[in-house]
Amino acid sequence: MTTDQLISQIKLKKSFLAVGLDVDLDKIPPHLLQLEDPIFEFNKAIIDATHDLCVAYKPNIAFFEAYGIKGWMALQKTINYINDNYPDIFTIADAKRGDIGNTSSMYAKAFFEDLNFDSITVAPYMGKDSVEPFLAFENKHTIMLALTSNEGAFDFQTLEVNGKELYKQVLETSKSWKNSKNLMYVVGATKAEYFTEVRKIVPDSFLLVPGVGAQGGSLAEVCKYGMNDNIGLLINSSRAIIYASKDTDFAEKARAEALKMQKEMSGIVRKMFQV
Amino acid sequence: MTTDQLISQIKLKKSFLAVGLDVDLDKIPPHLLQLEDPIFEFNKAIIDATHDLCVAYKPNIAFFEAYGIKGWMALQKTINYINDNYPDIFTIADAKRGDIGNTSSMYAKAFFEDLNFDSITVAPYMGKDSVEPFLAFENKHTIMLALTSNEGAFDFQTLEVNGKELYKQVLETSKSWKNSKNLMYVVGATKAEYFTEVRKIVPDSFLLVPGVGAQGGSLAEVCKYGMNDNIGLLINSSRAIIYASKDTDFAEKARAEALKMQKEMSGIVRKMFQV
Repeated sequence: MTTDQLISQIKLKKSFLAVGLDVDLDKIPPHLLQLEDPIFEFNKAIIDATHDLCVAYKPNIAFFEAYGIKGWMALQKTINYINDNYPDIFTIADAKRGDIGNTSSMYAKAFFEDLNFDSITVAPYMGKDSVEPFLAFENKHTIMLALTSNEGAFDFQTLEVNGKELYKQVLETSKSWKNSKNLMYVVGATKAEYFTEVRKIVPDSFLLVPGVGAQGGSLAEVCKYGMNDNIGLLINSSRAIIYASKDTDFAEKARAEALKMQKEMSGIVRKMFQV
Repeated sequence: MTTDQLISQIKLKKSFLAVGLDVDLDKIPPHLLQLEDPIFEFNKAIIDATHDLCVAYKPNIAFFEAYGIKGWMALQKTINYINDNYPDIFTIADAKRGDIGNTSSMYAKAFFEDLNFDSITVAPYMGKDSVEPFLAFENKHTIMLALTSNEGAFDFQTLEVNGKELYKQVLETSKSWKNSKNLMYVVGATKAEYFTEVRKIVPDSFLLVPGVGAQGGSLAEVCKYGMNDNIGLLINSSRAIIYASKDTDFAEKARAEALKMQKEMSGIVRKMFQV
């Protein structure tokens, strides 16, 4: 998917919501556990109930790998289900990968070719040649960690290097990499005041924003400091939506939660694009 | 496996070699491609031919994920084969994982429980709560990136923070984390002079050292600056061993390459332990 197609979807759906699929068998409705593939069945129900309210799904790869081959099969079925039934949805493999060049190429092949995701999250620590193999894919997007929403973000990301915080250096350096137009960045919602600084460095890039809701970030604050003329934000919500109910009405309740967020976003999108 | 058991194996085998399993279907002997599971058959032959010369195997997870479900099945068969037939071998999932706490817990479950690896490589960028879930596993080892062997290592890892290079800050900070005794570190062989600095901060930890051979690092240099009283090094070699031949003699040639390294190591181990 191109960035322009993503922006079109945001205008059309009046939403910039990404729904995170962090499927834990201990947290899904117990009645699903009798089915052959409870993870996929859960995802399918959530996707069918929310696809018109969000522009992206973000399967969290750890939650699939934790179930071994069955998990990987559920991942494959989930991404295929989205691509086959809702091809206008932007898909994010939340994988936080990154390794030396030939290894990153294999991860890129795994997620962009074999699984056919539109994007993947990556870690910056190993630098340029660990990220450029992902950037080489046309119309695929590489979402690099900049400033994350967790407590440990302050261990290294905000340390001062060259007179600025490390996450700013990461943003700046990455702009010089080959095909850097294919970069997006992870910036946590729990640090809304940082968005002003981020936008000085990457005014045009899309930002994937975890941490609204369960982790305490505010949508209004993030939009105030983080939006650009194309919205430029994908706000992720996982647990607050997918675990809204542990009963047979889980999909319905997930829709209700997604609708709350979409309604808040709707006003913002209308105002931005005068639609 | 405990660290003491690993040290015993080093003494017994007079080797601190780790063999990296980066299996690329384009690089393995063509005659294997007719088999049902060429990746596993290749690994099995390499393992059978080298297990007495090395103390560890390091499957590179990207190379399995690139082949989807088939790749994941080959990974499962490979780790089971090692654990069932050579239980004294230390196993390393080279995965470079790391995410917020609940997600890192799922990765730890995937690699420590479901696949039963002894260790996993992780990335430090997200800090303490992204690594501690791995450290919580008794007799499992978390091998964190400090200074890598690739060109991009100089993008961020060697930038100065708090009057020292970032990788030194990463080493120091990690020592305060819960169960930090379960940490090992990745330090690339291509930067042998850095080992002196690393050893000032983590004198007792094991270091996993990529970059000897194909990437240009010297074993003698690494040992000179990087060894401690228990050797404290796992020297990884991947391509130089597993792709020594593309013919039907690939396992034999892999053994010959592994033997060259083991011989060089043998003298070092004998001298260290007076055995």
